[in-house]
Amino acid sequence: MAEETQLCIDDRSVGVVETVYLHHDGLLSLESRQTLGPLTLAYETYGTLNNARDNAILLLHALSGDAHAAGYHADDFQKPRPKPGWWDDMVGPGKAFDTTRFFVVCSNAIGGCMGSTGPSCINPATGRPYATDFPVITIGDMVNAQKLLMDYLAIPRWYAVSGGSMGGMQALRWAVAYPDRVERCIPIATTHRLSAQSIAFDAVGRAAIMSDPNWQNGHYYGTGKIPANGLSVARMVGHITYLSEQSMHEKFGRQLRDAEAYTWDFDPEFSVETYLQYQGDSFVKRFDANSYLYITKAMDYFDMGAGYEALEPATARFLVLSFSSDWLFTTAESKDIVRALRWNGVDVSFMELQSSYGHDAFLLEVEEITRLVKGFLN
Amino acid sequence: MAEETQLCIDDRSVGVVETVYLHHDGLLSLESRQTLGPLTLAYETYGTLNNARDNAILLLHALSGDAHAAGYHADDFQKPRPKPGWWDDMVGPGKAFDTTRFFVVCSNAIGGCMGSTGPSCINPATGRPYATDFPVITIGDMVNAQKLLMDYLAIPRWYAVSGGSMGGMQALRWAVAYPDRVERCIPIATTHRLSAQSIAFDAVGRAAIMSDPNWQNGHYYGTGKIPANGLSVARMVGHITYLSEQSMHEKFGRQLRDAEAYTWDFDPEFSVETYLQYQGDSFVKRFDANSYLYITKAMDYFDMGAGYEALEPATARFLVLSFSSDWLFTTAESKDIVRALRWNGVDVSFMELQSSYGHDAFLLEVEEITRLVKGFLN
Repeated sequence: MAEETQLCIDDRSVGVVETVYLHHDGLLSLESRQTLGPLTLAYETYGTLNNARDNAILLLHALSGDAHAAGYHADDFQKPRPKPGWWDDMVGPGKAFDTTRFFVVCSNAIGGCMGSTGPSCINPATGRPYATDFPVITIGDMVNAQKLLMDYLAIPRWYAVSGGSMGGMQALRWAVAYPDRVERCIPIATTHRLSAQSIAFDAVGRAAIMSDPNWQNGHYYGTGKIPANGLSVARMVGHITYLSEQSMHEKFGRQLRDAEAYTWDFDPEFSVETYLQYQGDSFVKRFDANSYLYITKAMDYFDMGAGYEALEPATARFLVLSFSSDWLFTTAESKDIVRALRWNGVDVSFMELQSSYGHDAFLLEVEEITRLVKGFLN
Repeated sequence: MAEETQLCIDDRSVGVVETVYLHHDGLLSLESRQTLGPLTLAYETYGTLNNARDNAILLLHALSGDAHAAGYHADDFQKPRPKPGWWDDMVGPGKAFDTTRFFVVCSNAIGGCMGSTGPSCINPATGRPYATDFPVITIGDMVNAQKLLMDYLAIPRWYAVSGGSMGGMQALRWAVAYPDRVERCIPIATTHRLSAQSIAFDAVGRAAIMSDPNWQNGHYYGTGKIPANGLSVARMVGHITYLSEQSMHEKFGRQLRDAEAYTWDFDPEFSVETYLQYQGDSFVKRFDANSYLYITKAMDYFDMGAGYEALEPATARFLVLSFSSDWLFTTAESKDIVRALRWNGVDVSFMELQSSYGHDAFLLEVEEITRLVKGFLN
């Protein structure tokens, strides 16, 4: 055990961390004109807030992420292969988000299922889980919930906000909704409005979940049945969009998993099939199907406008990053963001990184991202 | 009624046609080393076979197509909006496949559900529908079944074989399996081996069908339940791959179907969502879920080899067409075909057509395709 611990926690790790919870008794006004409350926000912090309270960085997670961006949880070491937080490569002493210098905060988005209030939580009005009585939320609502955390932590202004994919949407929204509270903004592999094709993929995922008889109009909690098949199919579709054609070709090609020859049946036999099946199955164990509906819908609703005035209120300095093979949120979409920002006179640095990893590159192209983010934060 | 008939059947239409059936009492040897028989092949013909029997063209359909390539069926005129065959724009007097000159043949692929033997047909061994006792078939098996029809029609050699998408795969297979029987080959918007990404999309579709409880391991015939939800989701995924990002943007953008404002629920509300839902729902009414499994599997298995020797036995003259925005079977894949053919010394003409329609362009870019096909056939 001790050996494994040493393997994982080196001097560039934030070490053992804990998710903590902010309970907010008030009501949050939502874009839908509904309200949500009381609220719980799960969050983690790494590094130390300085006396001037001006070294805080907010990290925003993607669809299936959580508050656990870096380091390990104590109980991870009871697992055979402990896995660190989702952006551990980017957060720690000497890393892109250098915890010897910055106080890094990450919270689970509302609507999710990783500790913050979402559809699987108890609805105080009924004493039962919200399920589909949970109000539809937006990226803006997620940001407003994070603003409660910011105020609770008494942070006057984020030194920077950053995230990839849906995390990038939240970063953009922060910069537009609270321009005085955001000094720097680093949206990565993201868009300022979901395209028809991205909405289409989300719609397929939701159709798969909602047509699973175990979904039961969302009220599956406590019934002993969950829409596992639907959620698994939704995740499989998602995964195709996270990879590039090239990376799929390089990773899998037409390789068969177990056999030299075709099996002549319908069991998954190509490596790419078994990979997707595995991704679908393991997602079901850790993610709530209703949260998948709410979070994809929040993304579909995300639209900061089509024209140059789209991001007008933003005043932060921007670093916008895209990846050449990302076909979910393309370089063209990042350029739309950059164009609007420049039109508005905002200081923006943009880079398309060459990568074959597709959309997943924001989690994988650590070296390049680190170089650019470090330079930008200095 | 008479008026509508006049509207539909002009002098460039093949007019009212009929699907006919070839019954073959023998057994077809399959690539899986199983056999299939007796066989029924549904087919249609347009134009007249000349005395030399050398003016016959075989058209091959895509995943959801059928033998009805052109003209109208008599009972179509009882429908409010009669729809002609799937390639009516291309087949008729003066059209690309000019029926004043050519005898055009189109048959439904085996494994399908449009008249030729497939999983929904009665298994003579049991007296019940085959369902998943139907053997897994390949593109090569489809071609071998068509060869029975060719022999029955006493056609020594096809003047040309042509098709788009899966039809193009069959055309390639014809040219390689029966080089002496194919004079010209026109594969359109196709590939000579399915890529990992295409297999992935097919795998998702199959997972959606097979995880639908109504699928019942394929034995749903006569149970009063069909895996409609699964098949609908599979079709929705498919449709995304048939369009391009650009055509989706132009056709739908972020447009809402019925409302000016968001509805704040999970009913389909973006136009692209309602479009996909409609495509899924209407597909269920006309297509068999097991056929979807068998036909996508046949495509996944399609692999004519990776190297230059891939298409070696082919001797036909080729016209290879691809579309700039087709991301399902890309121009790069068509170029692989062309490269292998040229390496093998085959006479090949290649053109990438500019189109924003994506994969569907092979059904829509009629004018351009017509010009090229006409020139090639002369």
